[in-house]
Amino acid sequence: MSAIRHALSTKREDDFALWYQEVISEAEMAEESGVRGCMVIKPWGYGIWERMQRRMDDRIKAAGVDNCYFPLFIPLSYFAKEAEHVEGFAKEMAVVTHHRLIGDGEGGLVPDPEAKLEEPLIVRPTSETVIGAAMSRWIQSWRDLPLLTNQWANVVRWEMRTRMFLRTSEFLWQEGHTAHADREGAMEETLRALEMYRDFAETELAMPVIAGEKPENERFPGAVATYSIEAMMQDGKALQAGTSHYLGTGFAHAAGIQYQDSEGAQQYCHTTSWGTSTRMIGGLIMTHGDDDGLRVPPMVAPHQIVILPMLRDKPEDAELLAYCEDLRKALVGQSAFGEPVRVLLDKRPGKATQKRWSWVKKGVPLILEIGGRDAAGGQVSMLRRDKLWNDAAKANFVGLPKDDFVNRAAGELEEIQSALFEEAKAKRDAEITRVSTFAEVEAYFAPDKRYPGWVEAKWARPTGDELEAVIQKLKALKLTMRNTPLEAEPVSGDCIFTGRPAVERIYIARAY
Amino acid sequence: MSAIRHALSTKREDDFALWYQEVISEAEMAEESGVRGCMVIKPWGYGIWERMQRRMDDRIKAAGVDNCYFPLFIPLSYFAKEAEHVEGFAKEMAVVTHHRLIGDGEGGLVPDPEAKLEEPLIVRPTSETVIGAAMSRWIQSWRDLPLLTNQWANVVRWEMRTRMFLRTSEFLWQEGHTAHADREGAMEETLRALEMYRDFAETELAMPVIAGEKPENERFPGAVATYSIEAMMQDGKALQAGTSHYLGTGFAHAAGIQYQDSEGAQQYCHTTSWGTSTRMIGGLIMTHGDDDGLRVPPMVAPHQIVILPMLRDKPEDAELLAYCEDLRKALVGQSAFGEPVRVLLDKRPGKATQKRWSWVKKGVPLILEIGGRDAAGGQVSMLRRDKLWNDAAKANFVGLPKDDFVNRAAGELEEIQSALFEEAKAKRDAEITRVSTFAEVEAYFAPDKRYPGWVEAKWARPTGDELEAVIQKLKALKLTMRNTPLEAEPVSGDCIFTGRPAVERIYIARAY
Repeated sequence: MSAIRHALSTKREDDFALWYQEVISEAEMAEESGVRGCMVIKPWGYGIWERMQRRMDDRIKAAGVDNCYFPLFIPLSYFAKEAEHVEGFAKEMAVVTHHRLIGDGEGGLVPDPEAKLEEPLIVRPTSETVIGAAMSRWIQSWRDLPLLTNQWANVVRWEMRTRMFLRTSEFLWQEGHTAHADREGAMEETLRALEMYRDFAETELAMPVIAGEKPENERFPGAVATYSIEAMMQDGKALQAGTSHYLGTGFAHAAGIQYQDSEGAQQYCHTTSWGTSTRMIGGLIMTHGDDDGLRVPPMVAPHQIVILPMLRDKPEDAELLAYCEDLRKALVGQSAFGEPVRVLLDKRPGKATQKRWSWVKKGVPLILEIGGRDAAGGQVSMLRRDKLWNDAAKANFVGLPKDDFVNRAAGELEEIQSALFEEAKAKRDAEITRVSTFAEVEAYFAPDKRYPGWVEAKWARPTGDELEAVIQKLKALKLTMRNTPLEAEPVSGDCIFTGRPAVERIYIARAY
Repeated sequence: MSAIRHALSTKREDDFALWYQEVISEAEMAEESGVRGCMVIKPWGYGIWERMQRRMDDRIKAAGVDNCYFPLFIPLSYFAKEAEHVEGFAKEMAVVTHHRLIGDGEGGLVPDPEAKLEEPLIVRPTSETVIGAAMSRWIQSWRDLPLLTNQWANVVRWEMRTRMFLRTSEFLWQEGHTAHADREGAMEETLRALEMYRDFAETELAMPVIAGEKPENERFPGAVATYSIEAMMQDGKALQAGTSHYLGTGFAHAAGIQYQDSEGAQQYCHTTSWGTSTRMIGGLIMTHGDDDGLRVPPMVAPHQIVILPMLRDKPEDAELLAYCEDLRKALVGQSAFGEPVRVLLDKRPGKATQKRWSWVKKGVPLILEIGGRDAAGGQVSMLRRDKLWNDAAKANFVGLPKDDFVNRAAGELEEIQSALFEEAKAKRDAEITRVSTFAEVEAYFAPDKRYPGWVEAKWARPTGDELEAVIQKLKALKLTMRNTPLEAEPVSGDCIFTGRPAVERIYIARAY
């Protein structure tokens, strides 16, 4: 192994935001596109998204939800029907006004004034309105309910400050939209989707989250209740990684989604919507990344194992490659997480140490380095990326007989998956502090504190002006309320804001 | 079985265009969205697309092409760099000019004049320009070549006349974009993609196609050579179902895609692009549909087998359902086309004949009707949709012992797949007529001829004014040249247009 120390130029503790950008760039996940606020998702980043998508889609289908595809464009008039909704989104939408270009007489192009649209079109920031219009056509009777749809799509929200994966003008997501006969059915679906997201985040992404309800000021525009999963990043900030909304009958009134009940009376549907996006990839990076780059949980890694033959550009290489190809075949015959193991044999020319470093930065779960001596002795040299803290640390390589490794490969991957989860959960739990007074909140988030975590407080769920006062108090400390956890012990004691008896717990944090 | 005759209201021979619309509606594949030129793809249509997508994606990945994702928006300046390209697309693009809405003072919304973009953005009609900009960043040396990328995305081309799946303002597709060191490499890739499309169309979609080069007037804007696969619809018209373009160095010059060759000299890359879209679903309908609706090739059917228990709303139903559930489990344990068989047990309430009709219209390859007597006798009653020509025809049901059916289910599906292909191929081949003179073309496409097929002619590949004259002559007969087939016998004889010695064959047809 080489003595050269490969390293990122930024450590997490020095500048977390810069480290994040560097990981994305060094792991070749994404880059600026040159188009304002939009990124290019490169093969390694997109490969992770594809694995996430496949697994999430399986969960969505298993719940009986049908995938559909709805238009990218939404007429202004559809959008204007739901007052709160439009208020929430009007500030950040891309507006199509023309359908043709024309020469400007100087060799350039301009929108053709003759081709101005009668009604401008919005590039969807979310699809409640256009899907609501479809639902109003599809639903006639109680027999048509529940109606369960989902789409995988791109959406656009014009953002002034963008950050790759976390906040981009265009992003990729899935949005579930369902209609039900009553509140009960809709609430059940809202919470089913939330639980699906919680389990997906913790299982597939190995990212511990807290599932709970958002305070009313953080609700989706037009929703009656909004639920989220919240993850803690390694800088202590919260990331909302998925949301599920109970929309009541507001969108049904706006779009005319009605059904005839079993007694023959017309009723409005209760609707829900729920979504997760490429933002989760940002969460994955900031949960599992280390000072050597990304660490990808094996369940969503495009390659779970990379085999690196130590090629020497000599005739012996042929034998070494044959040995590695044998190993690759044996490994893809193994199954991990219910799927064939994904293995890449990296035959590219180049220095072995540089190639290793490229895979370390990308966070491939298992790297196998195979030299001529390994091949002759029927051995492999294995590096578990979850344990690697130093590129030069030979100690992290484990030598094993080839057959032993093949037999334990799936087990290693499963171990890495849970080790990443346990590590992240331990980190997060250690950074959640219970407080009983607002003074403790202020102390916890003292200005000189680097990377504070979250506080868990109790509150009386104030509303109106009282809530507004809380929001302002927190805002002064750059804090927001994240959610009130669904699975929490019963609460006793007083609200840290009002002094009245508390009714529930709430997490308070800085957030992305 | 019921004596009620379920039927579509339009037959293919009476009005093919109306029949097409009715199949889409009755099979619940798609519908108008209320947004100009955009459709809603419903679960059955989207399910077919998902199967197509999965299989095409496997082929793309197997060819070593990496999926990426590029921005929806393209700055006007990017687009204007390739002169022919912009000429070809400028007439039909959606233009984003504002990024915010504002109240109009009368309760409505208008684009905010304060939020006008400095440079308008085009909603991508295709991505050569924005991917070219990325390639220019990614490629430095010959070692980076070939660069093989693909994306699955939505694109927008403003269409005045739209037709579901065939021509919609927004559609879904995959677009492959590759860069190579030289012409040979790029041509090889162009033809590899074309052959992938040919094989996909004929294997997965059971749709016979002719792979060939488009005449120069039909080239993609900016391409040096365009190749297509052309399918014949049941009304005799041609449908271009996929294209592959050799772009030469034009886009590389426009975007600055350069590499250093092994001698250290700067060279421009040779690029390609290739795409298939939801348009193929239109081709599938018009290739395999019959007067009872759609027939879906089993390889891309969301459900390959539907089990219909003849429920009677009586206690005996439980036993019947248990029998059907057993059958379902046995079937999903079988494998067809290398994947587990996809089976739906349709437990919905409702009349069995109506439920059967709904699946007949949707074109599920195999329908199993199971009554109490079948269950008691360990039998199934099987309907092969490819053979059904009349909903009331009992003769098409075949009674079989359950275990026999389970064992032959995959075989039946494979037989249906090839039967659909053979049927379509026989129909197409019968409708291709070889002609030796232009007078024969005129006679073949006589105005009173209903649903004429194609003619295969020989030509000398005229260019310039001579080609223009050919185009006009054909246009008068509403005809276009489709392609010059790659796999054709050597040609002898004279060009039907110029009388000079012919150099190749060419297909001439009416087209979608």
